[in-house]
This record gives sequence, structure tokens and C-alpha cells, in this order.
Amino acid sequence: MNKGRLEAFSDGVLAIVITIMVLELRTPEGSTWEALREVAPTFLTYLLSFVYVGIYWNNHHHMLQLADRVDGVVLWANLHLLFWLSLFPFTTGWMDETGFDPVPTAVYGIDLLLAAVAYWLLQASLVRRQGHDGPLAQAVGGDWKGKASPVLYLLGIAASFWEPYVGVALYVAVALVWLVPDRRVERFVAEHQDAGSPVSDPDA
Amino acid sequence: MNKGRLEAFSDGVLAIVITIMVLELRTPEGSTWEALREVAPTFLTYLLSFVYVGIYWNNHHHMLQLADRVDGVVLWANLHLLFWLSLFPFTTGWMDETGFDPVPTAVYGIDLLLAAVAYWLLQASLVRRQGHDGPLAQAVGGDWKGKASPVLYLLGIAASFWEPYVGVALYVAVALVWLVPDRRVERFVAEHQDAGSPVSDPDA
Amino acid sequence: MNKGRLEAFSDGVLAIVITIMVLELRTPEGSTWEALREVAPTFLTYLLSFVYVGIYWNNHHHMLQLADRVDGVVLWANLHLLFWLSLFPFTTGWMDETGFDPVPTAVYGIDLLLAAVAYWLLQASLVRRQGHDGPLAQAVGGDWKGKASPVLYLLGIAASFWEPYVGVALYVAVALVWLVPDRRVERFVAEHQDAGSPVSDPDA
Amino acid sequence: MNKGRLEAFSDGVLAIVITIMVLELRTPEGSTWEALREVAPTFLTYLLSFVYVGIYWNNHHHMLQLADRVDGVVLWANLHLLFWLSLFPFTTGWMDETGFDPVPTAVYGIDLLLAAVAYWLLQASLVRRQGHDGPLAQAVGGDWKGKASPVLYLLGIAASFWEPYVGVALYVAVALVWLVPDRRVERFVAEHQDAGSPVSDPDA
Repeated sequence: MNKGRLEAFSDGVLAIVITIMVLELRTPEGSTWEALREVAPTFLTYLLSFVYVGIYWNNHHHMLQLADRVDGVVLWANLHLLFWLSLFPFTTGWMDETGFDPVPTAVYGIDLLLAAVAYWLLQASLVRRQGHDGPLAQAVGGDWKGKASPVLYLLGIAASFWEPYVGVALYVAVALVWLVPDRRVERFVAEHQDAGSPVSDPDA
Repeated sequence: MNKGRLEAFSDGVLAIVITIMVLELRTPEGSTWEALREVAPTFLTYLLSFVYVGIYWNNHHHMLQLADRVDGVVLWANLHLLFWLSLFPFTTGWMDETGFDPVPTAVYGIDLLLAAVAYWLLQASLVRRQGHDGPLAQAVGGDWKGKASPVLYLLGIAASFWEPYVGVALYVAVALVWLVPDRRVERFVAEHQDAGSPVSDPDA
Repeated sequence: MNKGRLEAFSDGVLAIVITIMVLELRTPEGSTWEALREVAPTFLTYLLSFVYVGIYWNNHHHMLQLADRVDGVVLWANLHLLFWLSLFPFTTGWMDETGFDPVPTAVYGIDLLLAAVAYWLLQASLVRRQGHDGPLAQAVGGDWKGKASPVLYLLGIAASFWEPYVGVALYVAVALVWLVPDRRVERFVAEHQDAGSPVSDPDA
Repeated sequence: MNKGRLEAFSDGVLAIVITIMVLELRTPEGSTWEALREVAPTFLTYLLSFVYVGIYWNNHHHMLQLADRVDGVVLWANLHLLFWLSLFPFTTGWMDETGFDPVPTAVYGIDLLLAAVAYWLLQASLVRRQGHDGPLAQAVGGDWKGKASPVLYLLGIAASFWEPYVGVALYVAVALVWLVPDRRVERFVAEHQDAGSPVSDPDA
């Protein structure tokens, strides 16, 4: 099966998730800098979730580059990932509205954790199709980021019950780790391709 | 006519339908697990409708793989399907807000039924173009799922007036039946294609 | 310039316009058929606007089939069309909430009229590029529908001040005229193409 | 890396940003022309922001035409641009709801300024890949519009504290300057291409 529509549908869902979160950003009450400053936490939470959706979009983009074809299992693994990402506006909104109370901050981390697990399952479903010596398996390699993230999320979730800001700090830390784009795929593509023959781009 | 834009437009509408339903998920009142548990029914209804939109997207994807070209009748049959799917946020919201009262639960089932009928009409309009010995007609075959679903929806609608939870259970049952991806198309493609020559993918 | 992104962007905007109108469909107050019947006018207005956006999408699809390339003028003519279409949720909502009062019903018609004018301008900008003996100019031909619609809209707008339901009836009438897909383009494509050589589809 | 998904994702986000701003357009209270006139400022602010998103979409479209491939830096430069554009509904809403008070009008200009800076960074990241004698660097040339805009935004921001309507007038002026589509790219493409050989269009 063609992967084009899977990419298009995922792009659509992620574009909407990343954009409707801005609807949480209520306009300040008043016309002053003071009023604007009061929405600063909401703004920063929006920024964090925007960056997370951006990271998922980037990594999704990279991973699908190395996938050739998709099957029904991959389609559902992808929808499963989109499900947890689609809850970001909800978990972001709750954490923000309660002013970073313990439970909502932990729930935000649980959503991050489940999205990470879903991403890992999607990757596994793609690797399974290619075999463990396929391009994706080789490019992913040790995947220390993918292994470290769930541990950090779990620490963040636990920390939220003690001091929510430590939890948030851990979530931010994971985002920063991932902000560096996944060079493995780019390197793999660069190594396994004649530099002189750019891959033909149908949209060029 | 090219089917590319029909797919792109459908992807867009389905991506929005699947995502705006999350706007129904109001943030809990309070910061406790108890407060979160109170939105659990809404969460489960969201999950059910998410899965239904996912099923339609998957099956749409599969069906269009076997369609070659589209005409005006197909375009309107597709818009007709999108219409009933676009009402999912409305029927989901009503059923959820009333706590699964009989009429809203029946109306939810009626929307599911009408979407199923619209899907069947779209399939028929595509088969009509290809002839009954075309690839789609062959791949669809007996279509027992497509025939059983409306019957189960009707049972669910009727049951809603007696005991809404039985109605919902039937809707869930149909979703589970469809969750298994439609292997018919995959099998058909696999059989009628040289395994050694992957279909060229313009996005690869 | 490539027309692919113009199509993709238009598909995105139309998909969102057609879908967010459903947010106007508030869930009924109560769990009865009676409560549902009270939202029937909103439902029918939603249906009318859904059909209108569907018509524009269909005709846009057909027209762009015959366009080869686009320039800056075409891009802005297209955005101009999308602007008036993006106001459909607003004009639909106002007409509906006021229970079809004269001014809101007239304003709904004015929006329809301006969208029709914008569509005509877009068509003119595409014809201008191809010359008046180009494929689009030939396919469009006499364009009696395109000429009759603005007259009917004007009649509907005028009638709204006397009896809004007559205005709405005229808007519905224009929609029904357009529901028949634009066979001109299909006929033109069919005539100017070897029936035996299907146009290659990059998404197939 | 392929630029197709970057374009598709950007189209999706921009389509949503341009469309959800219409949700700010509350239906007038009452059924009179008078009631409609009261939402005129909101309408004009919507128009201004619609035009701005349209400008960015047009220029983005043109710029990406001259880009061949993209890397991780380009992806994040693009997300950075989308971030500031995604705040348009927020800054537009605040400016409008406060009736063009000084601080909200300045904040609207700051958002415009940051989007312009982000666009410039995206352009720089693309030029960097191609080298300063690449097609994009040549097509962009002196880029007087890109240099003049931030200056005008800064003037507009400063003016907002003195007389907000002067600030808005300056923002409108920049929009008008950009409304003229960027001929540099079109000219460059026309000059460096055999007029007789249209670029093959995979969606044609």
C-alpha cells in the first residue's frame, strides 16, 4: 500500500492539533502588559506542546522517508499515535487551567509517555515489514533517545506529585533533547545514496 | 478525472472531524483523579468515534486504491459520505452530554447507519464505473461485513430505546469487527502484482 | 508555477470551512425527539451550506483540471474566492440564529453572490493565461449556469426583504441547478483524449 | 529530504489559521444592518489577517519553488515561522476586542515582526543549503521588501503607543506592498527555463 495518504492524513491531524491549541489562548482581560503577562503560563504551555507536536511531525517525516510501503497494521499503529497526540490540547489545557497542579501535570506526562510508546510501536511495525536488516532498523540503530525518553517521562510523572515544576522541567528537557533533528536518518540517506543523483521529487 | 484531490479533500475533512471531537472533551473541574474520572464517559465516547472515523479512513484508503478514475457521481457520493461523518461530533456530543439517554443513543446509531449506507453507495458508484468484473468488485467479493453492519446498527438503534447501553455495546461490536483491516484489498493487490516489482511511489 | 499547492491549500481551507460549520450545530437541550426537532432549521442550513461548499469544491476541481499553470494573479483570485467562502460559517450562523430574519437572509445571499463573482474572476484569470481558444475557454462555453446564478442570487436577496423564505428557496434552487456536476469539463476531457490511454495518476 | 511534506504540513497549518480566525467573527446581536455594522471592525481585522496569511502562503509557495531539498534546520525554521503565524488569531482577537488599544495593537505588530524575522530565517536556511550563487539567492536579490517591512513594523509598533490607528495604517501599508506577488521568482523561473517545455506537473 501507498504511504502517501498515511502521510497526508497525519499531516492534516497534526496541523489541526498544533493549531487548535491556540484556541486555549484566551485573549487577556484588559489592554495592559500586566494583562498579557497573566496569560504567559498559557503561552509557555502552548509553546511546549507546539514544540512536542513539531518534534513528532519531524520524526514522523524522517521515519516515513525510510519506509517503503505500509499495511493495515501500520495504518492502525499510526492512528494510535495520532490518538494520543490529539489529546494534547486536552491535557495541555487542564494542566494550564489548574496552574500546574500535581494530577494534571502528571496526566500531561502520561499523555507524553503514551505518545512515545505509540511512536515506538509504529516504528516497530515498520521495521517488522522491512526485516531487522532493513534501512529503518539500520538507521534507528541503538536509539538511545527513544529509550531514554520514557524513563524521563516516568521520572517527570513521579516528580509531579512531589513538585509539579520539576515534572514540567523534565518534560522540557526531553523536548530539548529531541529538538536536535534526528540525524541518523539523514546520515543514512546521505551514505546510501549517490551524492550526484538527487532523489526525484514529484513536487519540484 | 484524477482521484488525487478527492483523496486529499477527504483526508482533510476526516482529519478535522477526528480532531475537533476532542474539543468536546472539556477540561475536568478540579485537579483530582476524581475530577478526571468524571470525564471518562466523554473520553470513551471520543475513543469510539475516533475509532469509527479511523475505520472509515482506512477503508476509504483501501477502496480508492482499487479505483482508477472518478466522475461527478463519485464526487457527490463521497461528499454524501463526508456529510454523515461530519455529524459525528454532533451526535457524539449529544449522546455524551445526556448521559446515554435513549433518543440520543439511537440518533448516534442512525448517524452510523447513514454513514454505512453512504459508504456502500460510494462503493457502488465506483464499481459501476469499473464494471462488475473490475478489480474493486472482485476484491469486495461477498462483503459480509458490509452486509452485517447495517443489521447490527438497526439492532443497536432498536435496543437503545430499551436499554441504551446495549445499543452502545452493539456499536462497539461493529467497530471491533471492522478494526481488523480489510485484507481483501491487500490480498487482491498482492495476488495481482508481481511481488518483485513494487508499485512506484511518487512520494518515496 | 505549479498548481498542486494551490489545489492542496484550497482543499484544506474548504475542508475546514465545511467542517467547522458543524460546530454551529449545538447539541439539543433535552433528550427527546422534540428537542432534536428544534435544531432542524440549523441542520437544514448546515446542509445547504455544506452543499454549497461541496459545489464550489467540485467545480474548482473540474476547472483546475483544465488549467496548466498558475501565476500570482491566479493565486490571489483563488484567495479572494476562499475569503468569501470562509465567511459561510458566519453568514450561515447569523441567518440561522435570527430565525431567517430579512437582513441576515439577504446577507447570506450577498455572500453567495460575492463568492460567485470571485469564482467568475478566478475562471477569467485562468482563461486569460490560456487565451480564449484554450481548453478552459472552450470547455466553459456559454456558461449559462454561471450567468444565471448571480441573477437568481440578486432576486433572492431582494426577496429576502419581502419574504425571507422566498429568498432561501431561491438559494436552494441555485444549489440544485449546480448539484448536477459540470459535465462540460468531463465531456471536453473525454473528447480530447484517447479513451484507451488513461492519464497517468501519480497517486495510484 | 523531500520538500513535499513540508509544503503539505505548512499548507495545512496556514489553511487552519486563516479559517479559524473566522470563529472570532461572532454573529451580530440583532437582525439589523446596524447590528452588522457593529462587527465591521472585527470584519476588517479579519480581512487584514486573512490577507497577511495569504501573503505568507504566496511567498512561501514561491520560495519553496526554488528550493530543491530540505534538512532538519529548514524543518525547524519552518515550524518557527508557523508558530508566529499560528498566534495571528490570538493577537488579532485581542486587538479587536479591546477596540484597538495601544498595547494590543503594538502586540499585533510584534507578532507581524516576529513572523517576518522567522520568514527571513527560513529563507536564509534555504539559501545556506544552495550556496549564495544558488537559484534562490539570485532570485531574492536585493530583497528591498524584506528589508523595508521590519522597519515599517517597528514604526507601527512605536506609533501604536501614540495613536494606534497610525500603527494599524502602517501594518495595512506593508500588506499592500506585499499584495503585489513576488515577481522575482516568477521572472527567474521564466528566464531559466525553456518557454516551450512546461515543467511536468504530477497533479495535472
